[in-house]
Amino acid sequence: MITVLAGGVGAARMLAGIVQVVRPSEVTAIVNVADDDEMHGLHISPDLDTVTYTLAGAINTETGWGLAGESWQAMETVRRYGGPTWFGLGDRDLGTHLFRTHRLGQGASLTEVTAEIGEGWGLQVRLLPVTEDRLRTKVLILDDDTPDEGLEIGFQEYFVQRRHSVPVRGVRFDGADTASPAPGVIEAIIGAEVVVIAPSNPIVSIGPLFAVSGVMEAVMNRRDHVVAVSPIIAGAALKGPADRLMTELGHEASVLGVARMYHKVAGTLVIDEQDEALKPAVEDLGMRCVVTPTIMKDPATSSALGRTVIEAGRVGPPPGTVS
Amino acid sequence: MITVLAGGVGAARMLAGIVQVVRPSEVTAIVNVADDDEMHGLHISPDLDTVTYTLAGAINTETGWGLAGESWQAMETVRRYGGPTWFGLGDRDLGTHLFRTHRLGQGASLTEVTAEIGEGWGLQVRLLPVTEDRLRTKVLILDDDTPDEGLEIGFQEYFVQRRHSVPVRGVRFDGADTASPAPGVIEAIIGAEVVVIAPSNPIVSIGPLFAVSGVMEAVMNRRDHVVAVSPIIAGAALKGPADRLMTELGHEASVLGVARMYHKVAGTLVIDEQDEALKPAVEDLGMRCVVTPTIMKDPATSSALGRTVIEAGRVGPPPGTVS
Repeated sequence: MITVLAGGVGAARMLAGIVQVVRPSEVTAIVNVADDDEMHGLHISPDLDTVTYTLAGAINTETGWGLAGESWQAMETVRRYGGPTWFGLGDRDLGTHLFRTHRLGQGASLTEVTAEIGEGWGLQVRLLPVTEDRLRTKVLILDDDTPDEGLEIGFQEYFVQRRHSVPVRGVRFDGADTASPAPGVIEAIIGAEVVVIAPSNPIVSIGPLFAVSGVMEAVMNRRDHVVAVSPIIAGAALKGPADRLMTELGHEASVLGVARMYHKVAGTLVIDEQDEALKPAVEDLGMRCVVTPTIMKDPATSSALGRTVIEAGRVGPPPGTVS
Repeated sequence: MITVLAGGVGAARMLAGIVQVVRPSEVTAIVNVADDDEMHGLHISPDLDTVTYTLAGAINTETGWGLAGESWQAMETVRRYGGPTWFGLGDRDLGTHLFRTHRLGQGASLTEVTAEIGEGWGLQVRLLPVTEDRLRTKVLILDDDTPDEGLEIGFQEYFVQRRHSVPVRGVRFDGADTASPAPGVIEAIIGAEVVVIAPSNPIVSIGPLFAVSGVMEAVMNRRDHVVAVSPIIAGAALKGPADRLMTELGHEASVLGVARMYHKVAGTLVIDEQDEALKPAVEDLGMRCVVTPTIMKDPATSSALGRTVIEAGRVGPPPGTVS
């Protein structure tokens, strides 16, 4: 069994690679839900949907989110009324939010609804929301109106509405003090042959997973078989604000910065060939360091990376490599 | 000023006729909201939308509800998950429900949202929900599972899901004991030159309007200038279950049955030529009776009916015609 700690786009591509080399039914993804939001009364779970749609082969490959063959009639009507359209809800995609909201309203858990949606797409990978409790990333930003004290906004307001282009002073996970892991989450970590930390944003995608009570401890206990894939390549994120967020919040935006964030939970860090020179520095932190192409530009690279990651996790770091 | 008590399709066509003979900005429609419902977390207002879309010239003329040029991508996704699809939410239409739900969630009143939606379509007619309070038509039906005691269901479950094809034992308006008229409703009745009771279902479309505290009294006080248009022609409703509902609930499904329901509130009843023979019986109830073509099969008939109705209301019944 392989368990993957997952955010959105990067994790979805990692999973798409892993299922080429492992039976999908043996893979569990524990997915971030701290960027979930309520929009127009609907419950939106962006990371769960990105992973689902990607594994279903239905993702819009141009954007990396949303569905292929999408239309935008509902949003055009909202625009007619002057309503908010900054969070794009495509017509096909809306059906997922309608169904999820309907089932949650009936009292189904997010775990159950996520399984039903996965089943609708014929997925064999098991997707688990990290928690069924309310967990929301809040971002403290600085903008022209609040140059001194800052302004706390929801994650989607930061990420989508402001296109993650404002300086960030802090991030917190609202609800983390009371959120407990969803059914199956801890078991999937304990029982996995390999635990993969996907190349997702360490702060706002993987961070919320570790903020849920017991998750980080469970992963630490499996450290020898935990493999993290760096989302930072040559000092930059392929997509999204991971590099800037790391810098703004006092981390180094490099594979070394990633290693410093993960060395207590992961025995192995996989870095891109471009960062080979940093391998010794990563190893100095007590991690095994594997160098390989990590830019998942096509299915072949994804599956090669998937194979490398799983093999690294099976072997584990050599004796003596401890944090 | 003309005020129209309105349900859905019949009222929408009546209004489309009236605005051909009166300035639209001088027309107010007080619209039923007791068939509103929550679906998938969204607030649906079927009668308000039917009136809005009809006056906007955007209605799906084949169905009489929903928008022309509609697509159904969201519902196809819901179907993929095995979710409920009996209440058809088209993609274009969904934008209206998203916007309404969003604005209500922000604390806007249904009156305000209705005005904003009307503005989005460039409507000059003023649409008022009869109440901003929760008012819901509940239908007591008999089905195979409950042959004796009956089963109370929501209006849309009766009307759409069961296609109004089950016997009805009773109807009640949940919330009517505490619902108060929306701002402007009583004033629109008091201040109108003519009050029109549209050819809507007297039980489940007009009934809820009169169930809101003060509305029936306000209309009764204007009786001389109140004109009802019979939704029953030759013993049958043109569309929908009005005739069956009337029979099932102890009324006669005829213009005479309609006259008996309305004679205390309306001084004049407009009936179709096919019912001319019943004119004396209507007059015996103390109503003036106007006979004219009432099947609004095209804009010309609608506008002719609009003119007849408004003229009848201006003149009022002759002295001595009292209930």
